[in-house]
Amino acid sequence: MSVAGTMYTSAAIAEAMAAIAFDADGLVPCIAQQHDSGEILMMAWMNRDAVAETMRTGRVCYWSRSRQALWRKGETSGHGQRLVDLRIDCDGDTLLALVDQAGVACHTGRRNCFFRALRDDALTEIAPVLVDPKTMYGG
Amino acid sequence: MSVAGTMYTSAAIAEAMAAIAFDADGLVPCIAQQHDSGEILMMAWMNRDAVAETMRTGRVCYWSRSRQALWRKGETSGHGQRLVDLRIDCDGDTLLALVDQAGVACHTGRRNCFFRALRDDALTEIAPVLVDPKTMYGG
Repeated sequence: MSVAGTMYTSAAIAEAMAAIAFDADGLVPCIAQQHDSGEILMMAWMNRDAVAETMRTGRVCYWSRSRQALWRKGETSGHGQRLVDLRIDCDGDTLLALVDQAGVACHTGRRNCFFRALRDDALTEIAPVLVDPKTMYGG
Repeated sequence: MSVAGTMYTSAAIAEAMAAIAFDADGLVPCIAQQHDSGEILMMAWMNRDAVAETMRTGRVCYWSRSRQALWRKGETSGHGQRLVDLRIDCDGDTLLALVDQAGVACHTGRRNCFFRALRDDALTEIAPVLVDPKTMYGG
C-alpha cells in the first residue's frame, strides 16, 4: 500500500456506485477492518459523497448521522484510516473497507469499538484505553 | 467453544438488551466474523427476538428484513453459525458476533459475502464459489 492509501479512478468509483444499494436515507454501512491483523475496528455509515471521497483520496471518510456532515476520520483526532481495499457484499448493501488505522479507531481511546462483552453475566470492558480521549480531541 | 456454541443466561441476555441501541425499526446490525481466522463473513440485522435466541441457543439467528421473519442461519442450507462470543460496540448500535461458520456464509456459495472489489477499474469477483447454491437450498 502506498503512503497515501489506495486511490481509485473515476471509472472505478462509478462502477462501485452502480453496485452499491444505498438505503432509503441514501446511506450504506461500512465495516472497517485492519488489513493485516483482521481486527474489526468499527462500523459507520457512508453516503455517496463519502464513498466517492474515500475512493478518490484513499483516506476513509464516513457520513456522520448525528452531525449530518462528512466525517473525515482522523481529521480532528489525527487517528485516520488509509484505505487498502474496498469490498462490496453480495447484495450491495454493506461495504468492507480494509484499512490501515493510525492510532486508535474508537472515540473512547480503544483500538476498536467492539470492546464490550458478557463475562459472568455482566457487560464487561475487554480492551484497554490506549489513548486518553481528551488528548484525541484537544479537550 | 462447546459444540453447541456459547449460550448465555437470562441475566446476561438482559444485560445485553439494556446495552443495545436498537434503531427506529427495532433492529441492530450484526457483523459475523470467523472467530479463529478473523475473516468477515457477512453483516445482517437482528431484532430483540433474534438477539435473545442467538444468545440463548448459541446458534446465530438474524432478522430477515425481506421476509420479515426470524432467519435461523443454516436452517435451510445447513451452513449455520455457532456463536463463540458476542461483542457490543461503544455506542451500542452495532454487534459483532464471533462465530464458527459451518460451510459457507454467503447465499452465492462463497465463504463470505464480501467478494466484490475493484480491479483495473472493474468490479471483480475475488473469491470462488465453493458450494453450488442449488445444493444449498435444495433448488
